[in-house]
Amino acid sequence: MDKQEARLAIVNIGQLATLAGPRRARVGAEMRELGLVADGAVLVESGRIAAAGRRSELRAEIDRADAVVDAEGGLVTPGFVDAHTHLVFAGNRAGEYEQRIAGVSYQEIAAAGGGIQSTVALTRRATEAALLVEARRHRDWMLRGGTTTAEAKSGYGLERETELRQLRVVAALEAEGPVRMVPTLLAAHTVPKEFAGRRGEYVRWVAEELVPEVAGLGLARYCDAFCDDHAFTVEETRVVLEAAKQCGLGLRLHAEQFRPGTGAELAAELGAATADHLEMVTEAGLIGLREAGVQPVLLPASVFCLSRAEYPPARRMIEMGLGVVLATDFNPGSAPAPSMAFAMSLGCLAMRMLPSEALVAATINAAYSVGMGGDVGSIEVGKRADFLVHECGDYRELAYFAAAPLCPRVWIGGREVTL
Amino acid sequence: MDKQEARLAIVNIGQLATLAGPRRARVGAEMRELGLVADGAVLVESGRIAAAGRRSELRAEIDRADAVVDAEGGLVTPGFVDAHTHLVFAGNRAGEYEQRIAGVSYQEIAAAGGGIQSTVALTRRATEAALLVEARRHRDWMLRGGTTTAEAKSGYGLERETELRQLRVVAALEAEGPVRMVPTLLAAHTVPKEFAGRRGEYVRWVAEELVPEVAGLGLARYCDAFCDDHAFTVEETRVVLEAAKQCGLGLRLHAEQFRPGTGAELAAELGAATADHLEMVTEAGLIGLREAGVQPVLLPASVFCLSRAEYPPARRMIEMGLGVVLATDFNPGSAPAPSMAFAMSLGCLAMRMLPSEALVAATINAAYSVGMGGDVGSIEVGKRADFLVHECGDYRELAYFAAAPLCPRVWIGGREVTL
Repeated sequence: MDKQEARLAIVNIGQLATLAGPRRARVGAEMRELGLVADGAVLVESGRIAAAGRRSELRAEIDRADAVVDAEGGLVTPGFVDAHTHLVFAGNRAGEYEQRIAGVSYQEIAAAGGGIQSTVALTRRATEAALLVEARRHRDWMLRGGTTTAEAKSGYGLERETELRQLRVVAALEAEGPVRMVPTLLAAHTVPKEFAGRRGEYVRWVAEELVPEVAGLGLARYCDAFCDDHAFTVEETRVVLEAAKQCGLGLRLHAEQFRPGTGAELAAELGAATADHLEMVTEAGLIGLREAGVQPVLLPASVFCLSRAEYPPARRMIEMGLGVVLATDFNPGSAPAPSMAFAMSLGCLAMRMLPSEALVAATINAAYSVGMGGDVGSIEVGKRADFLVHECGDYRELAYFAAAPLCPRVWIGGREVTL
Repeated sequence: MDKQEARLAIVNIGQLATLAGPRRARVGAEMRELGLVADGAVLVESGRIAAAGRRSELRAEIDRADAVVDAEGGLVTPGFVDAHTHLVFAGNRAGEYEQRIAGVSYQEIAAAGGGIQSTVALTRRATEAALLVEARRHRDWMLRGGTTTAEAKSGYGLERETELRQLRVVAALEAEGPVRMVPTLLAAHTVPKEFAGRRGEYVRWVAEELVPEVAGLGLARYCDAFCDDHAFTVEETRVVLEAAKQCGLGLRLHAEQFRPGTGAELAAELGAATADHLEMVTEAGLIGLREAGVQPVLLPASVFCLSRAEYPPARRMIEMGLGVVLATDFNPGSAPAPSMAFAMSLGCLAMRMLPSEALVAATINAAYSVGMGGDVGSIEVGKRADFLVHECGDYRELAYFAAAPLCPRVWIGGREVTL
């Protein structure tokens, strides 16, 4: 019998965090509700959750299982959903990291060909096969840390062939499994060097040619754009995202990272799925996001890795009833930090999120933010059996053991993943 | 043939960081010298390094090896030496972590029986077998992250039987291997509740009875004391450490964590091996440490996990020629963070140490600080074959990939460790 077809029972779960709840992103006090079950059990059939609850109430189903997994008293949670990554790139910027520590300014690094343009240059030169090898390596680190679904953006091509190549790599990762991928076109990441002085032309090309082509090829589910003084103005961002919306793509937005007024209002106006970063967002910006149902995706690892002091106002967002998401922002420049558990630690330590809120933000809320809330993000009947058996016994330990190399056992679609 | 007796060759090392250099802690510009070799090889015989250098110059030795390991172009470094841990304790304080995030003050937590006294209470009640199981679990996380030698302190007993029990657990870990343990008596960690109002009596008991007994039993190599407003005064600390010195123990000291004038001068006066923490140390304090050859052990994870802003002045220490060490401070209260790579990331991001300086501080300088500099901490002929084959290709990536669950292949005494 194929493993995925077998009826599987997970027993001896010291603490089962089902994350069961309403069929939408959790807001306010809901973000503290984890659907905790002591001495729990989970039943899996045909790769989906068949039952989850108290072991004592599932005895008959457990007896009928073809295979039983002993969780050894540990914590079981849904797999992490990483809603914001730049997973596909060539090379890394460890040398630049060293330069920055030594006091070289970002401007000097950029003038010497460093920064994002260096990753663009390397990524353009890399073959699709080489990019896939690199992306798989980083994907495997994420998987080792418990990420079972990951959004992944293009944006290191900034020209047709490389943007498509990055998205084909994401498609290849999705096809090979086991981590589910959510592809996003981010051609409006920065203005490519060759368009210096002709930025309007680049924006028009992205909106009028690349977006329709990518949508037509089915290579992206979302379109993202970086609204920032160093990237695209609100008006330029609007041009790209309106085109994407017309082509049926969902919208995401790098907004308000360094200056207020860079995208939160636009995200609300266009009905984006998410507004990401938001370190500098204003109260008015947050009200707009709430009214429009836009989910904030917070990326504390980029604040940490840039040695910045301004973390986004997560507590205010939760108080206001926004469906807060935590993600890694994994990328070679500002956040070479692939661990969702570390994003949760920073959520708690730097943004005063409760460990329960951090777990909701890293699972079910993240799942809704990538349009997969009905399929993953919680351990509920009918959902895909993507879950983790942790090396600790209580959900609060996930954030508490900061940057610890905890490696949960990982199931995706009812199959245990071996790395 | 026993694996340890075999001649082993490690080849296809993209970057070999031998850390070869003078037979003492590295200071100043020496902290940037890693003894890097491109396309390197390492030969191991009887558990010790037999040769290390360019592969092309070691062909004959490689040909004679009984077994060859392919490093697949990766980075090879010495194993990490964690010079400051509180490894042996019962329970954890994830609940208190949640309370602190929710805004409960440390004073309120302590008044409700929380804080260090809650760990003391749990540790006193735990059996030696139970403590060993917990300590082994945490030790294994450290090992997974590449720690091959770890100092471990008592200090959650604060009475004879539990202090001895903690140290026997450290001895049991040392005996079972593979991580080498350096045991430290820290009975002067805080004043136990039952000695409230009689602190002088506790200090005298530690100095006059416990220290001589522990030294006589051979259960500790070092004695540590916590010099702080909430722990012991400089005079009390002196009483304990002078007794320890007389009994032949090396000295370590929790100093200057929250207020200047809490121990740096005393560490210099007594010729301690290390002064640890030093967040608030003054210039005069640093001059004293340098003159006396005391190594500063920096614990940035405790600053991070306490959400404090004051990191110790690592750059100034390096400029002044101190033999800086990085360690985790792993403990259930202020630093539940067992990863040496994360300590290195914080060293770089928060204290502006260069990646090379961070690696020196985490290996050879740490080895000298625990009295094992002649035996471990670098890949040099005659030293124990404790080394790591990393999942990255350049030493700078160790700190750069922040909090990433990178899991190096680990060799200790020439044997590969499987977890």
